[in-house]
Amino acid sequence: MALSVTVLFVILLHGYNTLASDPDSLQDFCLANTDSRTNSPCKNSSLATVEDFIFSGIKSSGKFGETGLASIPVNPNVFPGLNTLGMSIVRADLEVGGVNVPHYHPRATEIAVVLEGQVYSGFVDTQNRVFARVIEKGEVMVFPKGLVHFQMNVGDKPATILGSFNSQNPGLFRIPTAVFGCGIKGELLEKAFGLSGKDISKLRKKLHLC
Amino acid sequence: MALSVTVLFVILLHGYNTLASDPDSLQDFCLANTDSRTNSPCKNSSLATVEDFIFSGIKSSGKFGETGLASIPVNPNVFPGLNTLGMSIVRADLEVGGVNVPHYHPRATEIAVVLEGQVYSGFVDTQNRVFARVIEKGEVMVFPKGLVHFQMNVGDKPATILGSFNSQNPGLFRIPTAVFGCGIKGELLEKAFGLSGKDISKLRKKLHLC
Amino acid sequence: MALSVTVLFVILLHGYNTLASDPDSLQDFCLANTDSRTNSPCKNSSLATVEDFIFSGIKSSGKFGETGLASIPVNPNVFPGLNTLGMSIVRADLEVGGVNVPHYHPRATEIAVVLEGQVYSGFVDTQNRVFARVIEKGEVMVFPKGLVHFQMNVGDKPATILGSFNSQNPGLFRIPTAVFGCGIKGELLEKAFGLSGKDISKLRKKLHLC
Amino acid sequence: MALSVTVLFVILLHGYNTLASDPDSLQDFCLANTDSRTNSPCKNSSLATVEDFIFSGIKSSGKFGETGLASIPVNPNVFPGLNTLGMSIVRADLEVGGVNVPHYHPRATEIAVVLEGQVYSGFVDTQNRVFARVIEKGEVMVFPKGLVHFQMNVGDKPATILGSFNSQNPGLFRIPTAVFGCGIKGELLEKAFGLSGKDISKLRKKLHLC
Amino acid sequence: MALSVTVLFVILLHGYNTLASDPDSLQDFCLANTDSRTNSPCKNSSLATVEDFIFSGIKSSGKFGETGLASIPVNPNVFPGLNTLGMSIVRADLEVGGVNVPHYHPRATEIAVVLEGQVYSGFVDTQNRVFARVIEKGEVMVFPKGLVHFQMNVGDKPATILGSFNSQNPGLFRIPTAVFGCGIKGELLEKAFGLSGKDISKLRKKLHLC
Amino acid sequence: MALSVTVLFVILLHGYNTLASDPDSLQDFCLANTDSRTNSPCKNSSLATVEDFIFSGIKSSGKFGETGLASIPVNPNVFPGLNTLGMSIVRADLEVGGVNVPHYHPRATEIAVVLEGQVYSGFVDTQNRVFARVIEKGEVMVFPKGLVHFQMNVGDKPATILGSFNSQNPGLFRIPTAVFGCGIKGELLEKAFGLSGKDISKLRKKLHLC
Repeated sequence: MALSVTVLFVILLHGYNTLASDPDSLQDFCLANTDSRTNSPCKNSSLATVEDFIFSGIKSSGKFGETGLASIPVNPNVFPGLNTLGMSIVRADLEVGGVNVPHYHPRATEIAVVLEGQVYSGFVDTQNRVFARVIEKGEVMVFPKGLVHFQMNVGDKPATILGSFNSQNPGLFRIPTAVFGCGIKGELLEKAFGLSGKDISKLRKKLHLC
Repeated sequence: MALSVTVLFVILLHGYNTLASDPDSLQDFCLANTDSRTNSPCKNSSLATVEDFIFSGIKSSGKFGETGLASIPVNPNVFPGLNTLGMSIVRADLEVGGVNVPHYHPRATEIAVVLEGQVYSGFVDTQNRVFARVIEKGEVMVFPKGLVHFQMNVGDKPATILGSFNSQNPGLFRIPTAVFGCGIKGELLEKAFGLSGKDISKLRKKLHLC
Repeated sequence: MALSVTVLFVILLHGYNTLASDPDSLQDFCLANTDSRTNSPCKNSSLATVEDFIFSGIKSSGKFGETGLASIPVNPNVFPGLNTLGMSIVRADLEVGGVNVPHYHPRATEIAVVLEGQVYSGFVDTQNRVFARVIEKGEVMVFPKGLVHFQMNVGDKPATILGSFNSQNPGLFRIPTAVFGCGIKGELLEKAFGLSGKDISKLRKKLHLC
Repeated sequence: MALSVTVLFVILLHGYNTLASDPDSLQDFCLANTDSRTNSPCKNSSLATVEDFIFSGIKSSGKFGETGLASIPVNPNVFPGLNTLGMSIVRADLEVGGVNVPHYHPRATEIAVVLEGQVYSGFVDTQNRVFARVIEKGEVMVFPKGLVHFQMNVGDKPATILGSFNSQNPGLFRIPTAVFGCGIKGELLEKAFGLSGKDISKLRKKLHLC
Repeated sequence: MALSVTVLFVILLHGYNTLASDPDSLQDFCLANTDSRTNSPCKNSSLATVEDFIFSGIKSSGKFGETGLASIPVNPNVFPGLNTLGMSIVRADLEVGGVNVPHYHPRATEIAVVLEGQVYSGFVDTQNRVFARVIEKGEVMVFPKGLVHFQMNVGDKPATILGSFNSQNPGLFRIPTAVFGCGIKGELLEKAFGLSGKDISKLRKKLHLC
Repeated sequence: MALSVTVLFVILLHGYNTLASDPDSLQDFCLANTDSRTNSPCKNSSLATVEDFIFSGIKSSGKFGETGLASIPVNPNVFPGLNTLGMSIVRADLEVGGVNVPHYHPRATEIAVVLEGQVYSGFVDTQNRVFARVIEKGEVMVFPKGLVHFQMNVGDKPATILGSFNSQNPGLFRIPTAVFGCGIKGELLEKAFGLSGKDISKLRKKLHLC
């Protein structure tokens, strides 16, 4: 499951960091307070309406990116009622052959349910063991908190996956762009991956980095 | 969302109480250890296989009960890989007019996604306010931890809902059978609900209690 | 144990939602900061006085309600020093025959000590088992977090109970008024409780709801 | 509030260390499992009875010690139902002039309610500020987690205090006996307290240590 | 390990209480927001620089106090990047014969590594047992959360210790000055420590208290 | 900081999974109980000795691996007293030009102190920003929980780093070997990294994988 770059950009601009934890609640719910005249992290609860607790934005897929993935993260930025409740979800669609690149969520376990299609799906544990196989419509896979996982549509029609997380902001760390971005000295990457400087440059170019 | 009585019975017999908390993990995952020759709560991780992390039992609905609900809870009893990861899910199907009676989960928030149908869906907060309306295929509602919620299929075809929880054992407290069961003195219920002893007896009879 | 309606109303008006969790403290104590010129959730600790940590308002009983219960919740709204420390208490008095209606606290376990009188006291677990009997002066009962519990004065003089909670805001969900309030479709309640529409109306009338 | 030496001795012999945390529960309650043929920390819940959740041992005071304090800690060792619920209580009685020596509970906040008498009561924060005054019957004081506190009966009749904790095993660290016990090099204590070796010996003798 | 009085004073003046807990993060990191125009506890993450995550202030020792200890606490007040991450460290230097007086940290376990010298080092548990011996360069000792511990340089050259804590604000409670300060009635201390009023006065004078 | 392969192997054989969480303690400390005749996770505390709380195995560096790193993880497997206290440390040595490959710890923040040498040191956040620069003897860097970080000795003599973690088992996920291991379909990696099948094979060969 993945938060799309577009959405992350929005988060960056509008500020996602209004809360400091997935707390044991001190109230039934806590819609984020955007009124800086008070210190309270939660809006006065009497202002809540049923619409704060319902979300209608995943009836269809999002926009597809280069690797054939379209994902719509559903978190308190778009679904206010989730705030402080320790959960969020994501709808991910994969084109035929589409890939959700190896990534991990530093702050949540994910349960992924295949709603349509056939998806090669797996994760790697800290002993470097890979747990992976094709799962299909109606099947469920769990990706334990903080472990790298990945998915590829290996069927002959689009696939749809619904992912749930036990954090309102699971975080998303995509290995290819994060590790081969420009910020890390090439020399270190060469030694770490056993590659030449030329290899690293080629990799970065292919990933449209630097 | 509801754990069916059958499944609860199995839990009762086979013992669901192998763990004491939804912990911050000390390992990548923890398949329950059933070997009493060791003290460890987790099976040796090298024995894990990919099948421990995949579940295939919610491709179709469960068996319908009297109020028109069929639910299949997916927790570590049936899906070992979930153990200690702090999450579980449920598939709930409602016949036309079927009802998921007012209930609450003492240990989890629930995110419910309507996969099919039209469902009147809502919850009550601790100020006695009701947040409810009809939601349809593709819509999502959140039921904050510990609050009473309910659902009714108000469409003209069966409805299917997928619920996710941020506990591996959210617990289920169904108000009608729990509160009007035989164990509580009728006298107390009479005063609490403003009913006569005859009313209480009638209620209990209708719910097939006592 | 129960928070009285009057007090809850005050909470509603004055805003009880200044904190988002029962935290592991980052300081010795944290008196709520009401000065919106700073972002800090805690008042400067040098302003604390001994009076912030002492409460004198439960020397006598509160005002009795219709079911014969008078309760005084003692939480950070009235006792500032409790803020962020993860605890609160309540004094509850019951007239002869008085009832503390079936209710639960979504966010805390309660330990109840009978200071005076004889009280039929119990709770229901998620398997619908009822654990109840009469306890008397000096006896103690525990109501596990999130489970429905109830009390009735079955002695011949007033009873007094002291309840402690492991949350500064345990929350209070009273089953009768919450479930039979007006907000939930009568049709759903009829099916859930096996009652006629007329029965539901009668119940609501008796509870002074709708 | 203090655990009496006798009780601690029992704990030491019978093993108090059956649980590793005050957990977010995974079940309604968890009576400690003493059957080593299973790995489960909790006894099968169907074996629970109402007596597991009621305690009758604090109707009268415990046995008084040298400083005029009698305390009865109420924790899962004597009250099985408390296990894993994150709470415990204590009854403390003080003779006229009796003292509860400076001590702290490393794992819990305490709310102390004076049931009888007049008690000089206070705590010290990490800035060395002392918050103390006399409180009387019906008054309540909070001692934040981990801070040193103390009590003295300054009235002319016995005093009784009920303390609640937000841990099932708050721990008790009595400053005089712990710090001036024999295990710490006298040289270090001399420098730390600005005392002579003779002073330290005298202190230890008075406290019946070494 | 100890926070020096000077630094604590700065904390007091500048306000250390901007956060209420060591949270499970909701973001990668959270530099404290000092802009009161927003409610967010965290500064916009795009304003972070590498310097926020690096600290250069413990290359040499701090200033020595009366007992021969110099300590430099490294927490979010001086090292912003630590904020909300649940950790802090301290550099402590001890002159020959210098003492780190018996103290405890109410909110953290400490791991102490001896970088230079020979240090008599130990802690007391809640059963009054003392675990202590001399440790030397390269050795490591753990002081469990909330237990009183102490150190003395017993070698013939200065000693340096690096302590790590699992809280960003572990708190520091120094027994001598806290317990024998002026705020506690002498009468209570006399009874608690078995000392005369004259002894207590002498002790207070030696510690430069009152 | 990194757990060496040798040590991980030992962990795998001897079972590291004896605990399920970094708990709020229920006792002062908890040495792991290896006696399966009791259910307790902790050994009887009266069996503890001072040696359980002291570790002497990082006086010199470990054995260097292929990338020029030698690391010695110090956790409850080798240092029993750490068990359940929520902390561990690591000593890491880097040869001139040696590299600690990009890796992350899913369960802990790390504070790294440079004891000797000059180390290029940094981390990547979930927005793909890199925070990196050379730090030297006496400087400290923090790597927030779950984020990829890396180090390279850029000085002209060996470097030594002391890392502390706020988990007793932080976990270690080394990107190169985990992501380019044999278990993940080459096809998926090709698409994810924009590489040819030949490139992937070359990479795997260089890393001695497959």
